[in-house]
Amino acid sequence: MIRAGIVGGTGYTGVELLRILALHPEVEVAVVTSRADAGVRVDAVYPSLRGHIDAVFTAPEVDTLAACDVVFFATPNGTAMLMAEQLLARGVKVIDLSADFRLQDAKEWSQWYGMEHACPDLIAEAVYGLPEINRERIKSARLIACPGCYPTSVQLGFLPLLEKGLIDCDHLIADVKSGVSGAGRKAELAALMSECGESFKAYSVSGHRHLPEIRQGLALATGKPVGLTFVPHLTPMIRGIHATLYARLESNTEDLQALYEQKYKDEIFVDVLPNGAHADTRSVRGSNRCQIAIHRPQGGQTVVILSVIDNLVKGASGQAVQNMNLMFGLAEDVGLSAVALYP
Amino acid sequence: MIRAGIVGGTGYTGVELLRILALHPEVEVAVVTSRADAGVRVDAVYPSLRGHIDAVFTAPEVDTLAACDVVFFATPNGTAMLMAEQLLARGVKVIDLSADFRLQDAKEWSQWYGMEHACPDLIAEAVYGLPEINRERIKSARLIACPGCYPTSVQLGFLPLLEKGLIDCDHLIADVKSGVSGAGRKAELAALMSECGESFKAYSVSGHRHLPEIRQGLALATGKPVGLTFVPHLTPMIRGIHATLYARLESNTEDLQALYEQKYKDEIFVDVLPNGAHADTRSVRGSNRCQIAIHRPQGGQTVVILSVIDNLVKGASGQAVQNMNLMFGLAEDVGLSAVALYP
Amino acid sequence: MIRAGIVGGTGYTGVELLRILALHPEVEVAVVTSRADAGVRVDAVYPSLRGHIDAVFTAPEVDTLAACDVVFFATPNGTAMLMAEQLLARGVKVIDLSADFRLQDAKEWSQWYGMEHACPDLIAEAVYGLPEINRERIKSARLIACPGCYPTSVQLGFLPLLEKGLIDCDHLIADVKSGVSGAGRKAELAALMSECGESFKAYSVSGHRHLPEIRQGLALATGKPVGLTFVPHLTPMIRGIHATLYARLESNTEDLQALYEQKYKDEIFVDVLPNGAHADTRSVRGSNRCQIAIHRPQGGQTVVILSVIDNLVKGASGQAVQNMNLMFGLAEDVGLSAVALYP
Amino acid sequence: MIRAGIVGGTGYTGVELLRILALHPEVEVAVVTSRADAGVRVDAVYPSLRGHIDAVFTAPEVDTLAACDVVFFATPNGTAMLMAEQLLARGVKVIDLSADFRLQDAKEWSQWYGMEHACPDLIAEAVYGLPEINRERIKSARLIACPGCYPTSVQLGFLPLLEKGLIDCDHLIADVKSGVSGAGRKAELAALMSECGESFKAYSVSGHRHLPEIRQGLALATGKPVGLTFVPHLTPMIRGIHATLYARLESNTEDLQALYEQKYKDEIFVDVLPNGAHADTRSVRGSNRCQIAIHRPQGGQTVVILSVIDNLVKGASGQAVQNMNLMFGLAEDVGLSAVALYP
Repeated sequence: MIRAGIVGGTGYTGVELLRILALHPEVEVAVVTSRADAGVRVDAVYPSLRGHIDAVFTAPEVDTLAACDVVFFATPNGTAMLMAEQLLARGVKVIDLSADFRLQDAKEWSQWYGMEHACPDLIAEAVYGLPEINRERIKSARLIACPGCYPTSVQLGFLPLLEKGLIDCDHLIADVKSGVSGAGRKAELAALMSECGESFKAYSVSGHRHLPEIRQGLALATGKPVGLTFVPHLTPMIRGIHATLYARLESNTEDLQALYEQKYKDEIFVDVLPNGAHADTRSVRGSNRCQIAIHRPQGGQTVVILSVIDNLVKGASGQAVQNMNLMFGLAEDVGLSAVALYP
Repeated sequence: MIRAGIVGGTGYTGVELLRILALHPEVEVAVVTSRADAGVRVDAVYPSLRGHIDAVFTAPEVDTLAACDVVFFATPNGTAMLMAEQLLARGVKVIDLSADFRLQDAKEWSQWYGMEHACPDLIAEAVYGLPEINRERIKSARLIACPGCYPTSVQLGFLPLLEKGLIDCDHLIADVKSGVSGAGRKAELAALMSECGESFKAYSVSGHRHLPEIRQGLALATGKPVGLTFVPHLTPMIRGIHATLYARLESNTEDLQALYEQKYKDEIFVDVLPNGAHADTRSVRGSNRCQIAIHRPQGGQTVVILSVIDNLVKGASGQAVQNMNLMFGLAEDVGLSAVALYP
Repeated sequence: MIRAGIVGGTGYTGVELLRILALHPEVEVAVVTSRADAGVRVDAVYPSLRGHIDAVFTAPEVDTLAACDVVFFATPNGTAMLMAEQLLARGVKVIDLSADFRLQDAKEWSQWYGMEHACPDLIAEAVYGLPEINRERIKSARLIACPGCYPTSVQLGFLPLLEKGLIDCDHLIADVKSGVSGAGRKAELAALMSECGESFKAYSVSGHRHLPEIRQGLALATGKPVGLTFVPHLTPMIRGIHATLYARLESNTEDLQALYEQKYKDEIFVDVLPNGAHADTRSVRGSNRCQIAIHRPQGGQTVVILSVIDNLVKGASGQAVQNMNLMFGLAEDVGLSAVALYP
Repeated sequence: MIRAGIVGGTGYTGVELLRILALHPEVEVAVVTSRADAGVRVDAVYPSLRGHIDAVFTAPEVDTLAACDVVFFATPNGTAMLMAEQLLARGVKVIDLSADFRLQDAKEWSQWYGMEHACPDLIAEAVYGLPEINRERIKSARLIACPGCYPTSVQLGFLPLLEKGLIDCDHLIADVKSGVSGAGRKAELAALMSECGESFKAYSVSGHRHLPEIRQGLALATGKPVGLTFVPHLTPMIRGIHATLYARLESNTEDLQALYEQKYKDEIFVDVLPNGAHADTRSVRGSNRCQIAIHRPQGGQTVVILSVIDNLVKGASGQAVQNMNLMFGLAEDVGLSAVALYP
């Protein structure tokens, strides 16, 4: 059994890790930390976990966590970078669901996240945990930077086009819509149901923190810098991300549907929908799957890719467990076979 | 492997059966019928099932279904009673999620359901599939009448009080709130999001079809007829039932919290919450669990029981699989261990 | 023109007052206070008011407010009682939407609200602002205690039965469901859309602050203490309250439908629905109306009253303006004629 | 008083017309037709209108409607074109909320709407009812083609850029999100709350009927054909449209914020938000307003325009009344001053 620790167990990615790991046949949840709720039973905060998780929140201590085989950081940005080095030194693998190790450039990270990076030396070692790109590197990694939710949906959607060099990379557009759980479990006015229910809006149009992460990933795929306009929106539902991606084709010869099907034919968690289909977020709710549909309206030069995930699963905790499975030599989908909850 | 058939696979209880059975280690889904969608792949209608269910809808034929070990009827009322006898005769076990075999009195059934009963002889044989009451009878049954969603939440909530004779049974009140998936997957004006979203209402106050079923169950528990006012409501969410039950105590001596905990201590799917807790439907969404909280406001004579289930799981398809497990000698919770999807 | 001040303009009852008063032909909004947002334009916080309200939030100062003809307190409990006396002394009428002056008994108030009452002497003078009961007293009042949202829906529903002495007053039940805006515009975990969306729950079953207020109102109507079980619930929508009221009839002779129609025939804002109808909250959303339906399931002794309001309008700010109209000799419905926003 | 008739009073644009006209000081609702509900009181179908509309649905007859000064068609496509000519001949002004007269080219209309146009001769006379473009022509029109909801939000958003020739018109993108009331009040599976609640999806990516209408409007503004990719989406809320518009600037010199403010400075119903703001649909819910925000992420060449309306008001019935006001020489905002319902 893999002994797992979760730092920051009271947020949505934390409780989602617990939901998934509770039924994972190879994992024992050994430590769940929460500074605020230390001493409280986990299932007192989350009644959905009664009978599934028999643990008490503890304060986050390296000594306690060092007894784990793997530690997940489901914390706000800026926490994992303070503890990762010590845990690695004691032989613990680290999977960070926050943004601390996602950007290769520590200076750029500081600009977007508003603080100095506490351990820039580890950045180079950290593997960006998108298995569809980095599977082999993940298997031998000690430190995983789990991708953000927006970046996961956008990268999986654009990748096949970029790798083949089929589109104009200077003018990519990602119009992405997220459910409100993406804002986290924080007492903030803007996340009240009375504020965000029955309403739709864009936010951070001038620049969202996931922009440099997406740009970095797309540039790696195409081998050169890309020009990207990324507009995130808040849609009045709890779970789900729908990315609508626009690019201009520079070639007419390719069968795009076949290209995507070929690219992802061996991927368990990327599902290319049939020609003409539309993806909807409900069909991946609670599952670790990305569903993708390819369109070329009126046969024109603009390709439209629809890419949907559950932001808390493939966009966070499910993907983290997928990484863990790879790191520990397990089948990639152990504990991740749940069917989406529809309706 | 148990070969299972589902008649009426395009409704919400049908697709929920598919979601559960897709991951059930002892079941193979052999037949899924739909008159309207015959010839269409199941996962074309339900993209959430892609990769999980490799089946095509067929027309409902006894000969095809007779090759199954068990057939679930996820059909409108009045269908199962037309086919059950033939299937039983050919050695197939039948689990009916509709109301056809729930009432012991065929005449009463006809009054509430507006048609003659097609095979009243089978009613006596049918076992009411609430395992918490009828576990032993279910194990040897050929024909199960799966309880309605409202009746499940109300009976599990009232049972301990009734069995002990602690309350005035002449004036019970069940104020119950259901999510809109309870109305089924039918194109009806009242179920449009523009009609039922952002609004709350009672309906069928003069008499809902689940009333006689609840009365029958409560009377069996207490050994005499009960007086019950049952008011169903529609609440703007998709899944979940919250029953608020009111009864007048005739005794002051009992520790109600202990009574409920004792009654349900060996039940996997009934979870009595700690003293003072409130149940919420999100904590059972997607799971086969009933969570119950017991209150006695201001220490008065009125006891208030809060009982929540997911109407499509413990209120329908999950309970159906729980019955199947019992009928086939499996552990009661095989395939039913999913943790609720929160948030 | 009536010069109106609003203390606490950044909460939901505050912005709702602004929405109503912006179009009120006899009112000029002279002062809007907010300690936190002093100096900020009102329409910068509420873009819906752009072009309608040309005001800047100011700190709450008696001197500024004293220039008004009427001051509304849309504040948390405990604020109005600190300023009301000074404003009254300077000739300003006060309409308090909080609970400070609702209970006649200062000691009981202190128990439920957890603080000493700052000006118990004013309690006797305060008029409970339910126009359907206190219209004449309101006309000449200087200080109005605007009823709570739950109490408004419950009292209007029970009143006709109580006044006629038709029911057993020892065992009344009010099962009431509220939209989440009732929790106010406060950054609290429980009000996040991810927490309360797609879920239903009861809360404060052991005793909600509106309980003594409802009991006081019902006792006044019937002339003796009443026994009431009041269970509030949170339903996943923004606006609306649906009260489901249960009582046992002590007489069979009365035509209840006629009784209600007669009682409310001259009330502009209480609408008795036709026999057999069900009330839904969407039909009063954004309007100052209470709609009521009367049921007697299966012709039994239990009467079921359905009473719906918009918690922010008839349950708060609309009712406050209705009181203001009466106090200033205007027609009762000036500025309050908006039709409900359906769908 | 203007005598108004409404053909198709049972759909959402019909009931929205009734909501607005009920309080319009210069209008008397004389006729409301519905083939299905003929003989039924309007307020029996819509309890929100009790006390506001004292009318009975009648069958749609030219003779009855001819007694009106103006007739609104709130009907499915293909109905207005059958009756408009006769009504015009009898001196009745016609405002069509459906698509019958929106496209100048009858052949193109037939292709998109799947039927022959019944009176192509009237198309040339019909005035496209977007007052911000056609105000003067509307004043003297007999027949108005009210714009679609998507086209209203997209055109108002793009217009200032197009008129000034600031952008590359060959590659415009309109990523637009609509609430579900846009689908109308029809019993269809896809509009059930269980289907579209808590989910987000694109639809009709290959070509939506509003595409040619938008293209026609944009081409008129810029004086040449435009290349437009239009992707409509369904967002889980009832009212509201949010258009996110992307275009590439061909000039760097213009102050876009000033351009928009200047363009719309005299428009009552178009509100340009301050620099840096984000528009949200809740701030226009129930109002006839379009709110627009202008962004240029990272100071690049891609301009992003956010444009929000209530699809049933500025996107349909409110705009229809705005047209009526102009046609009858009234102030443009009579009956349309309602403040958005927030929260």
